[in-house]
Amino acid sequence: MFLNSLNKKHKIKFIPDNITIEVEDNTSLLQAINIAGINIVSSCGGKGTCGACKVIILEDDKDNQQKTVLACKTLVNRDMTVEIPTKSRLQEHQVLTTNIKNIKNACIEESNKSKEDLLLHYKKNPFVKKIRLKINKPSLTDNTSDWTRLQLKLKKVLIDNSDNSDKEKLITIPLSILKNLALILRQSNWDVSVTLTSLSDSDSEFNSYKVIKVEKGNSSPLFGLAIDIGTTTVVVSLINISTGEIIDTQGTYNKQVKFGDDVITRIIYAVDSPDNMLEIQKVVIETINELIDKILSRNKYNINSNDIVSTVVAGNTIMTQLFLGINPKYIRLEPYIPTINEVPLINASEIELNVLPESLIHIFPSVASYIGGDIVSGVLVTDMSNKDDLTLFIDIGTNGEIVLGNKDWLVTCASSAGTCFEGGGINSGMRAMSGAIERIDIDTQTLDINYKVIGDTPPIGICGSGLVDCLAKLRKAGIIDRTGNFQFQNSERYKVTSDDKIFVLAWSYESGTGKDIIITENDVKNLIRAKGAIYAGIRSLLNSVGIEIDIIKKIIIAGGFGNYLNIKDSIQIGLLPDLQEDRYNFIGNSSLKGAILGLLSQDAWKEALELSHKITNIELSVGNKFMDEFVSALFLPHTDLTLFPSVEN
Amino acid sequence: MFLNSLNKKHKIKFIPDNITIEVEDNTSLLQAINIAGINIVSSCGGKGTCGACKVIILEDDKDNQQKTVLACKTLVNRDMTVEIPTKSRLQEHQVLTTNIKNIKNACIEESNKSKEDLLLHYKKNPFVKKIRLKINKPSLTDNTSDWTRLQLKLKKVLIDNSDNSDKEKLITIPLSILKNLALILRQSNWDVSVTLTSLSDSDSEFNSYKVIKVEKGNSSPLFGLAIDIGTTTVVVSLINISTGEIIDTQGTYNKQVKFGDDVITRIIYAVDSPDNMLEIQKVVIETINELIDKILSRNKYNINSNDIVSTVVAGNTIMTQLFLGINPKYIRLEPYIPTINEVPLINASEIELNVLPESLIHIFPSVASYIGGDIVSGVLVTDMSNKDDLTLFIDIGTNGEIVLGNKDWLVTCASSAGTCFEGGGINSGMRAMSGAIERIDIDTQTLDINYKVIGDTPPIGICGSGLVDCLAKLRKAGIIDRTGNFQFQNSERYKVTSDDKIFVLAWSYESGTGKDIIITENDVKNLIRAKGAIYAGIRSLLNSVGIEIDIIKKIIIAGGFGNYLNIKDSIQIGLLPDLQEDRYNFIGNSSLKGAILGLLSQDAWKEALELSHKITNIELSVGNKFMDEFVSALFLPHTDLTLFPSVEN
Repeated sequence: MFLNSLNKKHKIKFIPDNITIEVEDNTSLLQAINIAGINIVSSCGGKGTCGACKVIILEDDKDNQQKTVLACKTLVNRDMTVEIPTKSRLQEHQVLTTNIKNIKNACIEESNKSKEDLLLHYKKNPFVKKIRLKINKPSLTDNTSDWTRLQLKLKKVLIDNSDNSDKEKLITIPLSILKNLALILRQSNWDVSVTLTSLSDSDSEFNSYKVIKVEKGNSSPLFGLAIDIGTTTVVVSLINISTGEIIDTQGTYNKQVKFGDDVITRIIYAVDSPDNMLEIQKVVIETINELIDKILSRNKYNINSNDIVSTVVAGNTIMTQLFLGINPKYIRLEPYIPTINEVPLINASEIELNVLPESLIHIFPSVASYIGGDIVSGVLVTDMSNKDDLTLFIDIGTNGEIVLGNKDWLVTCASSAGTCFEGGGINSGMRAMSGAIERIDIDTQTLDINYKVIGDTPPIGICGSGLVDCLAKLRKAGIIDRTGNFQFQNSERYKVTSDDKIFVLAWSYESGTGKDIIITENDVKNLIRAKGAIYAGIRSLLNSVGIEIDIIKKIIIAGGFGNYLNIKDSIQIGLLPDLQEDRYNFIGNSSLKGAILGLLSQDAWKEALELSHKITNIELSVGNKFMDEFVSALFLPHTDLTLFPSVEN
Repeated sequence: MFLNSLNKKHKIKFIPDNITIEVEDNTSLLQAINIAGINIVSSCGGKGTCGACKVIILEDDKDNQQKTVLACKTLVNRDMTVEIPTKSRLQEHQVLTTNIKNIKNACIEESNKSKEDLLLHYKKNPFVKKIRLKINKPSLTDNTSDWTRLQLKLKKVLIDNSDNSDKEKLITIPLSILKNLALILRQSNWDVSVTLTSLSDSDSEFNSYKVIKVEKGNSSPLFGLAIDIGTTTVVVSLINISTGEIIDTQGTYNKQVKFGDDVITRIIYAVDSPDNMLEIQKVVIETINELIDKILSRNKYNINSNDIVSTVVAGNTIMTQLFLGINPKYIRLEPYIPTINEVPLINASEIELNVLPESLIHIFPSVASYIGGDIVSGVLVTDMSNKDDLTLFIDIGTNGEIVLGNKDWLVTCASSAGTCFEGGGINSGMRAMSGAIERIDIDTQTLDINYKVIGDTPPIGICGSGLVDCLAKLRKAGIIDRTGNFQFQNSERYKVTSDDKIFVLAWSYESGTGKDIIITENDVKNLIRAKGAIYAGIRSLLNSVGIEIDIIKKIIIAGGFGNYLNIKDSIQIGLLPDLQEDRYNFIGNSSLKGAILGLLSQDAWKEALELSHKITNIELSVGNKFMDEFVSALFLPHTDLTLFPSVEN
């Protein structure tokens, strides 16, 4: 796959990926996209028949017009800038989403139990149920109204089928369904299927149902969405609620990224004007709706958006408020108060989500401004709140959130790790997607480098797990000292520029971008601050409850790192506590997994509501103890080496 | 006020009133409008300064353009067609709305009790309440979310203030309020007023509140609307819920009249296409919103639409379904099933009513397709369901509905009386408004006629109470026989044309239209059918429970007739049963009065819900007994004269 330099070459910049590569004259654009490590849909294999690989050529030597073309049918004969629309992208967040297959069929039936399934002890009792009703026709002597007739029959069936608790339940119906109820009942000859959603509320035993759909009688399954709204990425899973099958999972960038990488920048943007507030809400809903469209356009069941009758969302507190258009101004100002932790039930129509308008959106409750529903969802999936032993849960995403506890108590804190581990602020940094170096090894003698790239393509950057590896190996090879300063190396990989020191990880001729993949002294300092923040968070949490690290029996790592994080290297650099490797577990995108769990089980959902009250937030900004811990952690692995007995000096 | 024929005259046709008059050259248009008996706003008394008397000149000898002018500043110098917009009209439905003053301050305090007030035994406990809260500011150590903080304080105040039953109540908040809750709390320095609405449901004890407004702390009163949606007219009252004061009442035509005078025609129009359905809903909401605008534009409190926090609506079943956009197709087809009798709670925003969008609309439940919420509302006001004695309640509007019963049982039926008594299908018929003959006397010897006109203007037509009078007097004077056939009269008032026989009630020179006001043999036949239908309904209802008429202690007449119906004459023609006059009572627009009652008292509202279940509908179209009764009633007063002992033959 090396680029041959004999022929004429052209530079192609891909946006919004911001990846520039060089390719030979007459290379097809589809090939170039693959070289750049960008996953594009190409259902027909490049024959030009499916029309899926549409891209937009933005700049062009000949004219300045933008032009939509099929990548497979376009040859590169000049320098160009090419936008690859979300629609044309295939499973962008491969790493984040494929892990989800692990819980396929989870929490469905006892018989499916396996030790991988953390979810199995919840009963499958989703918010929605579908009931087939054969109703007696009205007559002059039996002339109650249509809705009363339907309601009486529904109540009777609910009582007959259950569970007793349905006896006292109220059933409501929205005006939108009443409008044509008379026609539907008669067109279906009084044989209808009614989809009900539970209006259960955490605070009370007052349980009731809302009719969200009345259709001709049938036995088609119910479908729902689980959504993880991350600051950086958004992932949507389509679930067959009736069977528990995960039909499809798609992820993409949160379009809000254009208003800033981190939550603070976004809050500042959002509160600047009511228009900004509307816009920042709109783009995240657009992001989700495009993912829904993508999933619906290719599902085997011919599901349309009105077949999606239940949605569960997990996101951090700021993402949740922006998703709902709730002004987040005071979240970033001391004393950091969100408008809501527990979110009222929302109708899909209120936020124009592209699902059945009358269906409900259940949103995971937050604990505090910086401990959101994504963490509650994650804790739910870890099952740590039902264990005797202590568990430490660490979610490293755009922020680092840490939860410690067991069935008796749970404490948490948020640590501003920054976006380093997602590639932010690192010269060759990128997210864990195709083309990213995820493993690296440096020969301590020759400084020769071996690396492993996601998708086995030429490398175009280095992702979080690669950076952790890299930091450990740079230290091991003596390229950096314990504070992260570069040491002189008699190697062509080592370069000094006017404002930084550089170490080359992959040469331009190896890379997919035509440029060197590098790490600099500044990159290293940023990474040390990030790992120091996370470790200091862990220490602060332990201190707050007066517990020594060794008592912790299980450490669960969630987030983009996924299964790819090297535990040994993480300990070497002082990112993770120095505990036996077998105490570490990976859980992938626990926020999404928890959302799926909530979608399938009201019992699990209720536990999540309880968790949000049970988890105590430790505000790290209060007092100076965190700052002391942080400063102590700005070394590799730490100033206090007794905390890292396994690490060689 | 006679028109002087010395000068040049011009014909002016007013629409939508469909009244044509002749006026002298250079009469002001304002004067002409007054001559025509149309009430127009003229706040400045015709000085041309207030701009209120805007009218539209539609046809014009000079050009075909329509032109908006001030009536007071425009002189009539040619024939013209003039549209008088609703906005420019003053208290159109004087007769219907002024009666409302009778219950001013009713149901407020025990001390206001008077024997006129039917409403007094209900406790004043409206759906809405406003609570002033002074909330502790959050801090780093007291950092619950804004909504949780507000909710806890609210619950505490509810418990402290009450009544115990509030202890278990849920409080919900809509997303729209959450969006800026953080700002409101801080801008008001944590001193806020919260308006709550009860979400009580008839079916259950599960009571909960919804926050519908959060504003800076204040003690301003709460306002609400009571609305009567009639087939022909719509009346809106603005109420100070805090004091019970009726601030203003405005009525106008239901704009749906353009799709047909009666409910059947409107159903046919509505179900013809989804667009028609939307349109027919839109025009009634427009009708109401224009009345709200009119009331708000001139209230002394500077109330705006967001200050209206509660709305109660009463209308017949078809009006209710059309108001909500619910397809009414099957109401007119046997077995005549409505989609709903009991209406779910509706948010104002769902139907774009011009009140606080988050406020609730409570709609009176119906009994059956042709016994609507207006009748339930009326029965509530009569208090007949709390009496030992039997009461007969008759509401004569576009339809005639009859309810019979006491505290133990209630039966009802609807009789298609048609629109005769509102002026429909009668040559000189008109509604009970300014210019209508409401009383008439015919000298049995000379056939000279005396009449009384509403507003003491020259007559422009004859309304329901005038027609009842007229029929009785025509019979008494021997002008018609018992079947309604005209008898030859040696009088200039008696004329025979090719297709009808005519009796002149007022000569053209007396009238405000420049034309004779007449009654014809066909008019008489139509009136006999109308009165026969109502009497047959009463008889059928009595037969259904096997009761003789004399047992009825009280007869209550509601509807446009108001206090103006002559009981003696009504008995003479066989419209009403032959009972002592002191058993008869008038209640005016009981539908609107009941709506006011519901607005002020949840106890009253709950009784209305119970009434809707308690009242048994007798379907007159089932079996032939009604038809027998109807045929027997097509005489003056009846074929069975023993039913009318007081009537001379």
